[in-house]
This record gives sequence, C-alpha cells and structure tokens, in this order.
Amino acid sequence: MKTDVAIVGVGQSPFYRKCGMAERELCFIAFQEAIKDINLRPEQIDASIVCSAPEYDKQRSPAAVIADYLGIIPAPSFNLETLCCSSSAGLRQAYSLIKSGLHQVVAVIGFQKMSELTSREAAERMVRGGDVQWESPFGLTMPAYFAMVASAHMAQYGTTPEQLAQVRVKSCIYGEINDKAVYRKRISVEDVLNSEMVTSPLKKFDCCANADGAAVIILASGEIARRVTDKPVWILGLGASTRSAALAGRLSFTNIPVAREASQAAYEMAGIGPEDIDVAEVHDCFTIAEIVAYEDCGFAKPGEGTRLIEEKQTYVGGRIPVNVDGGLLSKGHPIGATGASQIRTITRQLRGECGKTQVEGAKFGLIHNVGGPGLYCYVTILGRD
Amino acid sequence: MKTDVAIVGVGQSPFYRKCGMAERELCFIAFQEAIKDINLRPEQIDASIVCSAPEYDKQRSPAAVIADYLGIIPAPSFNLETLCCSSSAGLRQAYSLIKSGLHQVVAVIGFQKMSELTSREAAERMVRGGDVQWESPFGLTMPAYFAMVASAHMAQYGTTPEQLAQVRVKSCIYGEINDKAVYRKRISVEDVLNSEMVTSPLKKFDCCANADGAAVIILASGEIARRVTDKPVWILGLGASTRSAALAGRLSFTNIPVAREASQAAYEMAGIGPEDIDVAEVHDCFTIAEIVAYEDCGFAKPGEGTRLIEEKQTYVGGRIPVNVDGGLLSKGHPIGATGASQIRTITRQLRGECGKTQVEGAKFGLIHNVGGPGLYCYVTILGRD
Repeated sequence: MKTDVAIVGVGQSPFYRKCGMAERELCFIAFQEAIKDINLRPEQIDASIVCSAPEYDKQRSPAAVIADYLGIIPAPSFNLETLCCSSSAGLRQAYSLIKSGLHQVVAVIGFQKMSELTSREAAERMVRGGDVQWESPFGLTMPAYFAMVASAHMAQYGTTPEQLAQVRVKSCIYGEINDKAVYRKRISVEDVLNSEMVTSPLKKFDCCANADGAAVIILASGEIARRVTDKPVWILGLGASTRSAALAGRLSFTNIPVAREASQAAYEMAGIGPEDIDVAEVHDCFTIAEIVAYEDCGFAKPGEGTRLIEEKQTYVGGRIPVNVDGGLLSKGHPIGATGASQIRTITRQLRGECGKTQVEGAKFGLIHNVGGPGLYCYVTILGRD
Repeated sequence: MKTDVAIVGVGQSPFYRKCGMAERELCFIAFQEAIKDINLRPEQIDASIVCSAPEYDKQRSPAAVIADYLGIIPAPSFNLETLCCSSSAGLRQAYSLIKSGLHQVVAVIGFQKMSELTSREAAERMVRGGDVQWESPFGLTMPAYFAMVASAHMAQYGTTPEQLAQVRVKSCIYGEINDKAVYRKRISVEDVLNSEMVTSPLKKFDCCANADGAAVIILASGEIARRVTDKPVWILGLGASTRSAALAGRLSFTNIPVAREASQAAYEMAGIGPEDIDVAEVHDCFTIAEIVAYEDCGFAKPGEGTRLIEEKQTYVGGRIPVNVDGGLLSKGHPIGATGASQIRTITRQLRGECGKTQVEGAKFGLIHNVGGPGLYCYVTILGRD
C-alpha cells in the first residue's frame, strides 16, 4: 500500500444521553481503548488534536486540559472544529503533521458533552452554525435544512417517507447489537411514520439525537506503525471541501455540494473509485442525509439512492454495507466524537474485528462526514495491507 | 536558506475598541493587504485556517463564512483555537499542510471581535480558559494569574513596579507611530504607577486590552513563493508546547514552562540560538509577561529580564529590539488576530519595510505567543534570504 501514515489505535466511549462525568473522563475511556492493543505509552504520542464544537461545554479550550489528563504533555496540541465533521478534519491535520515530518505519532481526540444544555439551548447553538448575518435569524434550524433537502428529493425523484423510514429501520437493526449505541431497540417503518412530526416531512425517528461521547484515533508514521501493530490501517484518501454557511446561493437541494467535491478529491488521492469501496460510514444525521450520501459518494446515481435501501444493498451482505454500526441515528451524535467514531468502525472492519456485522474480506473503507448544513465535508478512504 | 515553506503575504486590519462591522468584513480588510503585493488570486489559495477563540462572536464555526466571503472556496478550511496563540498555532498547521504536499498555498486568518460583549462577559469567558473543574470557579482571572507571576518575580529577583512600567513606556513609544494600534499616546512611568489597581501588583496600564481586529498570513511552497514574491520570508523554526490549565501543579511562577519548551524546540528546528535573533515579538499581555518572555526566550538569564528594559536593549537600536510595533499593550489584543499580527510585524521587519522602527539588516526574527495562563505556547522563527 503506497502511503506513509497509518491508523494504529482506535477507541470509543459508550455514547450516552447524559454521561454524568467530565469531558476529560469521557475522553479517557476512549483513549484507554485506543492504546490498549498497541505497544505505545501516552508519552510517545508527540502531538494531539482535540476536536469538538465549542459552546456546549463549560471548559473553554479543552485541548490542554484533556492532553494533560491523558498524559500527552508537553506535546503540541490544539483545538480544531468544523461542526459535525470536526474529528474527520482532525484526522486530515494529523496526517499532515506526520507526513510533513513534524511528528511521528498523533492522537485525534473527538468528544462532545451535550447534556449540560437543554435541547432548546443546544438547538440555539446549532442554528448559529448557519449564517448569523443573513439566514439563521429567520429560524433555519438543522431539521429545517434537511427537511428542505428531503422535500427537494421527494419532488425531483419521487422519494417517499417510507423509503426514508427504511434507513432508520436498518440503523436500528445494527444499533441493537452495538453496545456503545444510545438507541438499541429495533423499530418498524410504521413506528417511524407514526412518530411525532419535527419539520415536515421529517418525523422524530428520521432525526439523530444529541449525545455525550468521545472517540480517539491514534495515527503513526509507516515505520512506527509496523512496529507497534500487526494490523495497520492505511490512510489512502483525504478529501475536503468548504462552502458558505448561507444556503441562498445553493443551486440544488437534492445533494450536498461539499460532499460531492470531498468524495471526488478523496477518490482521486486514493486512486480508486466508489466501486472499490467494501464498507462505508456516512453522515446520517437525518434519514434523508444517508440517501443523499449514497449519491454524493457515488454508490448510487443521483435520484437512485432509495433503490439501495429498498433492495437492502447497504445491509451486511449487500453490495455496499453502510452504517452497519447503527450510524448517527442509533449511536447518537456527540458532535466532535462522531467522525472519530465512524473512523473507528471502518478501521475495525478493515481489521476484521466486527463480529456479527463484519463485512467479509473488506479491503477498502470510506468515511463521509458533513459539517452543519453542508459548510464542510471531509471524506476519508482507508485500506489494509 | 534550507526550508520549503515561506510567508509570501501579510495583512492586518486596524485594531479597534469597537469596529462596527461583521467578522467577515474585518477579515476582508486584512486579507486585501495580504494579497495586494503578490501575484496571487484568492482562488489560488488551496486551503485556509481560521483562528479565533469561540464564544465571543455570534457566528459559530466562522471558517466557512469567512472563506466564502474572501473567495477561498471550495478549498478545505477549518477553525483552530489555542486561546491567545491561535493564529501562531495556525501558522504551524499551515506549514505542515504545505510541507506534507497536501497543499501549495494556505491562508491563516486570525480574528476576534470582542466588542459585542461587555468587559465582564469577556472576562467570564477568559476565566473558563483555566481549569473549570478545579480552579476557575475560585476566581483565577487572567490579571490574577499574571499578578501571581509578577509577585513571584518580585519576591525572587527584586523586580520593581517601576521596571514593569518601563515596558509600558516602550510599548507606547512604538504604539504612537503604529497607525493600526488602538493606543497611540505616550505615557510615563508615573502614569502607569498612578493608574488604577487591577490585581496587585498589576495596575491598569500594566494590562493589555480587549480589541476587535484581524490579521492574515499567506504561506506558499518554496517553488511558488519564488514565483509570486521577490521577498519570501522563510519559516525556519516552529516550537510548540502544551501544559495543564490547572496551575496547582506548577513548580515555579517566575517563568512560563510552555514558553521555555516551545522556544527551545523552535531554536533546535531552526539550528540557531537566541543570540542570532535580530528582532522579536513577544506576548506582552501584561508588562510582567514581556520581562518573563525575555527570559523564557533566552534573551536574558532568569531574573535578568529587567536589565534589558532598564538598559533599553529592547528598543530599536538596542541589542534585541522587542515589540517595536507597540505589542499587545499598545496595539490591543484581539485574541485570534494577535499571533498573525506579530508574524506580520516580523515578516515586514525581515523585508525591511518598517520605516522608523526598522531594525537595520534584520535577518532572523522570533515570535513568542502564549495561550491563556500558559496552556499553550507557539514560538516561530523566521528568516530572509
């Protein structure tokens, strides 16, 4: 595999509705899992990147507090944020720190503790991730934005509420057996359709939920990777794109432009295409977001994403299993931890450690992680030896 | 000069008490200055890093909003924060993005608009940059922390309030002729000593003040740098260190441990020592901080920093001119913009563009930028051909 940087350790805390512990303790749980299998001491990690969306936690600038608690000092550290894709952006920076020769082993620590705020307070903060000068004052919340995407997809391609509900059904099947997920109960298409309306056409069970949680990824240079683990997972593609927070200038709502651009860039860097991907994690903050992600990542043509879920092609055993850890919909979505949790799942798939949800022989995996209503997208492609 | 990454453009908005414009407009002013001298269009910048401390501005995740306004989309972007040294940390990441081969031209955009908050609100946010679990609830504000440093320095080395005041006198002499500074009036040692007590022994004029402002640094690979400018300024040394936000475990208060570690790392990478530095910018958030910085950067031995200011060795014409643009004390301290403003000054010194404050023949410059009460320090060493 032609690359110089590998993932050598991954860890995740359970995701909780309310964790009852400090941010640093949450991160410690994830960090312990990430280092337990590898022959590394915390002090050998020579840089860390702490990824979270600010304004949820009392602690400002958490990087120093967390790096200290994990024993990763005095190594350089900083806080990085791109809303919901913060830790995927962190992975890209960690790669560049190693590839540039500045560092050899870097920890990416994603976390969020959202339970200190009421739902209303959390929603208010999310709204301000949109353009505060021109749009968010008029009430464009996250569910409202994705409801626009769902409406456009329905109008243009005939997508139905039942098809959206099928995404949630799949999510719950895999969430049930993920002991780190918040939601661990199977539900039916009817359960989704009968749930409370949030923003038409999205019902309550079309939406993911706030959570507390942390996830950690440890990266190393190729040389060190081969020394500390016999299952290095290589970073093959890193695509990223940024666009305005204002939606007024967007030409279409049936796709997320940054996601198309980022996945294209990731495929280009990796030198492979969507047909080569064996397993994927996509940003299913809402059921419609998973359908659109199928299309933006090239797993289906525009408008044909619904066929993948109808034909169960994104289940284990299907053509391209997606979110077979339960996704954001079942795991919960602790903003800064989400990307690292997705990366952990794909790393474990490529190492063959996923038990009942293992995709046999998986060689290439993709992670698609979107920030806010499409301000950022980071797409990562991983591969094994 | 053996290096691959250069600074090719620098810009800064005036620093204001209250700017009366949006964050993106502030950044635009700085960006315009940064690109005006070089043969580059915004769309040739292939990544941007937006550096600011969150919770001051209504706009969350400003990177996308600002990158869009400056025309740097769909290039990858992210928000980075290390409190008061955010944009110095941004420079180090930009270097790694170029050195790793991921990007060729990267803009570091530092800004802060603090005027939307009352002083009390701003102070409350700063306090939460300390350890919120164990220390900041007990009232350890920024002035209180640096008052502890001043008291320790006085007790151990006999440093006097008059010597601290001399730092402010120098700052005001250079602030008077910096048309981007907030404070442009000379003051005397007596003025400082007679100003209102903030936290003993620090008086009002021993402290820098909140401000609104932006500063931009554009970096390019060596190949592009030689093409777009005839005065590239090379990045020679990048040192960084992180330590706990909690002060309880600190062994001494007469120095800032992260600053010693970061400057040592920067000298090592650059292959030069403090005696080679011709001009420096240090983080004078309080007068005592400049004295301690002289010592932490190796310009004076521990306890002998006061001699440098007494003998006017840090004035233009002295052995090592420091903060001859007025420093934080006269320019103001818009958190995220401060590091980039310091880097701009040193870049302009090395290009010979500083007029009355020009340090003749300056070849090597150093920037020392501290985050909070010593949670982070980033030290940068620059050199010209």
